Amino acid sequence: MTFMTSPARPPTASAQPGRALEHPAAADIRLEEVLHALSDPMRLTVVRRLAGGGGELSCSDVPLPVTKSTTTHHYRVLREAGVISQTYRGTSKMNALRRADLDRLFPGLLDRVLEAADAQAGRLGEELGPGGP
Amino acid sequence: MTFMTSPARPPTASAQPGRALEHPAAADIRLEEVLHALSDPMRLTVVRRLAGGGGELSCSDVPLPVTKSTTTHHYRVLREAGVISQTYRGTSKMNALRRADLDRLFPGLLDRVLEAADAQAGRLGEELGPGGP
Repeated sequence: MTFMTSPARPPTASAQPGRALEHPAAADIRLEEVLHALSDPMRLTVVRRLAGGGGELSCSDVPLPVTKSTTTHHYRVLREAGVISQTYRGTSKMNALRRADLDRLFPGLLDRVLEAADAQAGRLGEELGPGGP
Repeated sequence: MTFMTSPARPPTASAQPGRALEHPAAADIRLEEVLHALSDPMRLTVVRRLAGGGGELSCSDVPLPVTKSTTTHHYRVLREAGVISQTYRGTSKMNALRRADLDRLFPGLLDRVLEAADAQAGRLGEELGPGGP
């Protein structure tokens, strides 16, 4: 298994073969990739739900109107950009915002994006769906 | 010529055929498209320069290490997302940030992105290039 901090670095060993997922180290998180990760409506929905929940959620906790493979793709983009962490807990893959890392690297950015998303949803009359804040 | 506020709307007439460029109306600017427009290093460079300059700049005022057609593409993405306005002044196409629209729609977002970009450039030891602030 690999647990790389960036694609350019060689994989390193871990105590849980096949279970850990690749995450960028905080120092390798790039603004452009974070903005790209946040620029998709489905991924923005996930981030808003994670921010509203305050903790970990499984993918099935955030219903998206897309296929399971597309859902997996969106979570992977968020993880590889450093926006979320994904951790196996038993048979579930749990997702959480990397809020501390993002707030330290890009102060205020995530909060302004979340506020802007809320305001836009209000203007457009959208809802976050079942389980939303 | 067309001067559309969004691709879904029919073109309307203008007094300057072939000279005006399509811009979304403020109400049609979407957060996801703005974030996408800002998620490219070249486009972020342009936005930082426009923000630093405080007014209008031509494309040639912001040297980018890409071809002219790629440069044109990046400016078009920024314009169609509602991040910049592009206006012909004589033979020059002048670019300006739509800061008032963005600040009204997404309060604080552009400033946080600019601060984050500055901080990241500082961390990575990057410069804005000739003419940068």
